[in-house]
Amino acid sequence: MITLYGMSSSGNCYKLQLLMAQLRREYDWQEVDITRGENLSPEFLTMNDRGKVPVLKLEDGRTMSESNAILNYLAQGTRLLPEEPWARAKTLQWMFFEQYSHEPYIAVARFIRLFLPEDHPRRGTLDSLKAYGDEALAAMERHLARLPWFGGEHYTIADIALFAYTHVAEDGGFDLGGYPHIEHWIKRVRQQPYFVPMRGAQA
Amino acid sequence: MITLYGMSSSGNCYKLQLLMAQLRREYDWQEVDITRGENLSPEFLTMNDRGKVPVLKLEDGRTMSESNAILNYLAQGTRLLPEEPWARAKTLQWMFFEQYSHEPYIAVARFIRLFLPEDHPRRGTLDSLKAYGDEALAAMERHLARLPWFGGEHYTIADIALFAYTHVAEDGGFDLGGYPHIEHWIKRVRQQPYFVPMRGAQA
Repeated sequence: MITLYGMSSSGNCYKLQLLMAQLRREYDWQEVDITRGENLSPEFLTMNDRGKVPVLKLEDGRTMSESNAILNYLAQGTRLLPEEPWARAKTLQWMFFEQYSHEPYIAVARFIRLFLPEDHPRRGTLDSLKAYGDEALAAMERHLARLPWFGGEHYTIADIALFAYTHVAEDGGFDLGGYPHIEHWIKRVRQQPYFVPMRGAQA
Repeated sequence: MITLYGMSSSGNCYKLQLLMAQLRREYDWQEVDITRGENLSPEFLTMNDRGKVPVLKLEDGRTMSESNAILNYLAQGTRLLPEEPWARAKTLQWMFFEQYSHEPYIAVARFIRLFLPEDHPRRGTLDSLKAYGDEALAAMERHLARLPWFGGEHYTIADIALFAYTHVAEDGGFDLGGYPHIEHWIKRVRQQPYFVPMRGAQA
């Protein structure tokens, strides 16, 4: 059986929990509390020398990092990752968008607001994070006005990757009320078979 | 024939020129000068409503953005993108690393130093960009101490993605002399068949 190492309250880690639930696959989950530095233990650093979660470990000991790469590995050969070259690359397009233009603003704003003290200097970056995060949400909204899912006509791992931090964007100070197509998409993701919620997120 | 839209001095655009040269494939190149706002023309925005380069356009009009997604699309079925699931996902792992942990520091530092005025306020972020960029270079150095290429035993699009901004990292104030495995890897990339240099970069 494979092992996944992660912190359940992290959207990047939740992506993998959601995928595995929807694929009805069993796995061993090892909770790694990065707020207590468990990601910097010698044992963890042998798996990922940058101390980042999540990490996938196969039975033979091979390891992989980067949540969206792990999603691609685990979804291969399933309905959640298209085989057809164009559709597969469009799925990747949105997953690169998520890591470059979405997570660094929407997830980071959530982290600062939920986990850092009221007087922390990083709170001074929230206005800028909000502006860039709203640009990302606006791009998603325009896409969803044309197509039902990020990969096109079908629910894929691109939806899983984007759902993780979008559905808790309000934790970061974003108002999803201004993005009706995103709100509807969030409802439709929650209706997918074997959906599981993120631990600690509002239902 | 496919069309690629980009600015030749951008590493993200150069990735595609390098791949196509190494695949010996013909394409139409359309230069888009973002310093003159050509990426914000109505025509360009119909292809990518976020105004980002590069963009791939197929003969039938379909378009794709995100340089690393385009690399995956164009390299499918070639020696530069492994078919075997683990190797393919490891290639993606480093491409997500490139977009999340490398490009936002190493490419952005280069942009600020090369293109913004001496008194621009963004120059105040250079120390921070340098620190994070050096973390990314250190992670690459550790990997290259163990394996010859980022995908493992063979040159892949992960090497192309990382080469684009690493080989011009000194433009951003990074000293590659401290990373001997990276320096050696850069030489080996340059020796790959049908290598082409980035326009405007030192040979």
